[in-house]
Amino acid sequence: MTLKHEDVPEETMERMLAYLRELDCIWREGKVKFSSQTLAKVLHTNPAQIRKDFSYFGEFGTRGVGYDTKQLIRELRAILNLDRTWRLALIGVGNIGSALLRNPELKRQGFDIVLAFDNSSRRIGKKLGNIMVEDVSHLRDRIREEGVQLAVIATPVECAQDTADALIQAGIKGLLCFAPCHLDIPDEVRIVPIDIPMALGKLVYHMEV
Amino acid sequence: MTLKHEDVPEETMERMLAYLRELDCIWREGKVKFSSQTLAKVLHTNPAQIRKDFSYFGEFGTRGVGYDTKQLIRELRAILNLDRTWRLALIGVGNIGSALLRNPELKRQGFDIVLAFDNSSRRIGKKLGNIMVEDVSHLRDRIREEGVQLAVIATPVECAQDTADALIQAGIKGLLCFAPCHLDIPDEVRIVPIDIPMALGKLVYHMEV
Repeated sequence: MTLKHEDVPEETMERMLAYLRELDCIWREGKVKFSSQTLAKVLHTNPAQIRKDFSYFGEFGTRGVGYDTKQLIRELRAILNLDRTWRLALIGVGNIGSALLRNPELKRQGFDIVLAFDNSSRRIGKKLGNIMVEDVSHLRDRIREEGVQLAVIATPVECAQDTADALIQAGIKGLLCFAPCHLDIPDEVRIVPIDIPMALGKLVYHMEV
Repeated sequence: MTLKHEDVPEETMERMLAYLRELDCIWREGKVKFSSQTLAKVLHTNPAQIRKDFSYFGEFGTRGVGYDTKQLIRELRAILNLDRTWRLALIGVGNIGSALLRNPELKRQGFDIVLAFDNSSRRIGKKLGNIMVEDVSHLRDRIREEGVQLAVIATPVECAQDTADALIQAGIKGLLCFAPCHLDIPDEVRIVPIDIPMALGKLVYHMEV
């Protein structure tokens, strides 16, 4: 594919991810074929939006025949760089961190936590799933050794910025951050926050009190 | 306050939440006062944006004196309905669910999980933190009894829609959903998704492969 992802609007890429998620659900329900009319319904959007989003990436489906679920999943995964396994480092093996380590769904989706770090002597050296928790002071060397590009920050807020700085020095290019705070990150590093208190906050400001 | 939250743009409310998050960090660092010039820097935005967002809710700070951190936190929490404790029901006590139950930070932020449900006999009757895991078949009665308005869905994808339907029948008005799938929800119920595989997906489509 010659198209650069930078040329595709962010919103389109996010919708492509949502389409893939719906197609995964549908595949599990055993639906193997779609007409283009039903595709939009199944993806919870309208046909014009889908055509516009897909048009960035070429032709999908066959006129008069429709879409093959498995093939469309395969094509979307390739577009989204999800047709491979991504190796991740995890920093912070508290409640959320250890939940991620134990979650088989992540690996099934192509995200394999291969390194886990903590600063607590209670946790260092323990095995969680298949992964031995390592001392966070070895973070830079170990990430370089393993050639990992992505990391998950699941530390307390107080350590999150220092952790991010160390990760970026180690060559990390993408961060998923569970710490509920703003992080200063260079432009070339991508960060996606998952802020659970803020998500709950979004629920309540419209509630009747 | 006579202003209806429906009159305030969603983006403003989301920025108010982000401002509050930054102010919480700053307060913990011991900064008790701000000039209006430094407030924007601290909130990672520009003064015009802050003035515009705040203007929906009245006057903050004192001309020539600036802002008192604690007072501003108190005012934002009141605006955002975060000046009280919200009682939550949790459905699904797997990895993520039990991580949430054990997380003291949520309660500190005003979100108290008072009910937890699962469908597995391995989990029902177990105590996690202070909460006894109950049989999900009692969900409707127990939620009505406790008068809970908010729920967290941390079930597998396969059970998420049925769980949401039961919660809504029980009177739940807001859902935080960790199951990575679309849910059909009536307009009057608010849902905020936290989709970890999708967040990781957002990280990787711009990565070099």
